Amino acid sequence: MTDTTAMGGTTGGLGSLPENANPALVAAAKGAAEAYRAARAAHDRRALAETVAMGADGTPTMRIDRIVEDAVIDALTKHPVNILSEESGWIDKASAYSLVIDPLDGSANGAAGVPLTAFAGAVAVDGEFTESLTVWLDTGRVWWAHRDTPTPYRTSGRTTLDGAALSMLRPHTAKPGPAAAWWAAASRAARVRILSTTCLEAALVAEGATDAFADACSDTHRLVDLAAAQVMVTRAGGAVRDVHGRGIVLDTDLTRRWSGVVAATPDLADELAEVLADAQKDADQAD
Amino acid sequence: MTDTTAMGGTTGGLGSLPENANPALVAAAKGAAEAYRAARAAHDRRALAETVAMGADGTPTMRIDRIVEDAVIDALTKHPVNILSEESGWIDKASAYSLVIDPLDGSANGAAGVPLTAFAGAVAVDGEFTESLTVWLDTGRVWWAHRDTPTPYRTSGRTTLDGAALSMLRPHTAKPGPAAAWWAAASRAARVRILSTTCLEAALVAEGATDAFADACSDTHRLVDLAAAQVMVTRAGGAVRDVHGRGIVLDTDLTRRWSGVVAATPDLADELAEVLADAQKDADQAD
Repeated sequence: MTDTTAMGGTTGGLGSLPENANPALVAAAKGAAEAYRAARAAHDRRALAETVAMGADGTPTMRIDRIVEDAVIDALTKHPVNILSEESGWIDKASAYSLVIDPLDGSANGAAGVPLTAFAGAVAVDGEFTESLTVWLDTGRVWWAHRDTPTPYRTSGRTTLDGAALSMLRPHTAKPGPAAAWWAAASRAARVRILSTTCLEAALVAEGATDAFADACSDTHRLVDLAAAQVMVTRAGGAVRDVHGRGIVLDTDLTRRWSGVVAATPDLADELAEVLADAQKDADQAD
Repeated sequence: MTDTTAMGGTTGGLGSLPENANPALVAAAKGAAEAYRAARAAHDRRALAETVAMGADGTPTMRIDRIVEDAVIDALTKHPVNILSEESGWIDKASAYSLVIDPLDGSANGAAGVPLTAFAGAVAVDGEFTESLTVWLDTGRVWWAHRDTPTPYRTSGRTTLDGAALSMLRPHTAKPGPAAAWWAAASRAARVRILSTTCLEAALVAEGATDAFADACSDTHRLVDLAAAQVMVTRAGGAVRDVHGRGIVLDTDLTRRWSGVVAATPDLADELAEVLADAQKDADQAD
């Protein structure tokens, strides 16, 4: 497969991956990429966005989520790994290996046709995250990382929020604490983006294209949003935190939530988490 | 050239264009796409973002802007058209045809490696905008439109801000009026995005992937940011406005500014402009 088709987004191909990449993780990613393309071709916006069920994470499942997740679960049938996935929850196969998967990050983008969606998966061995794979589904571009393998990704190295390029989830304008937290961080950053896809925004932090990403205290993140970042961004010199210090560790309860902070350095992660938490606290006390 | 290479982003190819597309416009787009790719390959982030001059629009010119604009001007040498371009300003060749061009929209994205940048150009004949071409430089995807030709693009048709998917420029947190305007619109929308590339966000409005885009009263937009949208979005059923009702018409003075509103319908454009203007006015009176 040439680089051209790998970037094509029309051939089903993904960018090149190392031979020692976890085969279950790769199979899951390929299943997601093919299903995403097929779903976009077969259904219009309204059908893709329709709520078809409630997911294991407690949020509504869109048809496009369901289609992509079904394909991922199907692709993993023959692989002896446990699976934690956004809609299906925990599938226990009594393995030492677990895949923590967001089959379609940026579902709203994907349903509407905003070409910013991702597959993201992490491998946990005996509960420890070791390997990650993120795929920009709209182009086939991949980011792969392993805890014990050198990586080409390097974060920007930025240590301070003043002047940083910051991505965030959209502001939750109706909640005083999270609203104040969002605004406080936006006021310090030189650039602010909302791409509506945590997993892709984390990949941009890993490669240094942006300095940080945060959920501004809205507790929207689930483990599937942060697991791949935990491996990839940490390996690239950055840090992944929760605003309130809750550990981002393997847990089969998908109703758990975090306010994730993904940053170019531990110092920037600490500062960003502090700015967010302080602003939330001040606003909640004033409310 | 196949669809695969056209989407590749690594071969220099653009998506397919109609045979009657204005040849100067197409030449400019190809020049921009090739130069963008070459610049990203030749220079690191710091070099691409370095300020090398002040542009004709009164804002600093990054090296990546200069490289792409030089290639566009060069590609147009043999074409007998006037040119209005971000960095060079007005180049008068005494033609009835004028090209209004943003060679590299989303310069900060492009310099940093966030893959959301666009070339956008419009043709004006005797001062009237007739044709537009927008290229997503990171993938080669194109949007072409002509005032007098049927178009495949259809906006979402949404008429109200409540529940809309809205893109905006980043909030100007230090300016009370624009800050209040940004927050007021964000509070009404169901989804908020900041992709930091007006021209690409306008294309997403044209094809119905998002409902509207706005500069929330910061008067950041220049004509080169809005001219292509004026043709493409209007043709697709939408509307392009300035928050304060200033006409978006050919003007060779690149220091002029607008707060652009690009929306799926005239009704939505009017409501969004009103929400923004009212919030700005209230905040400025209270300040």
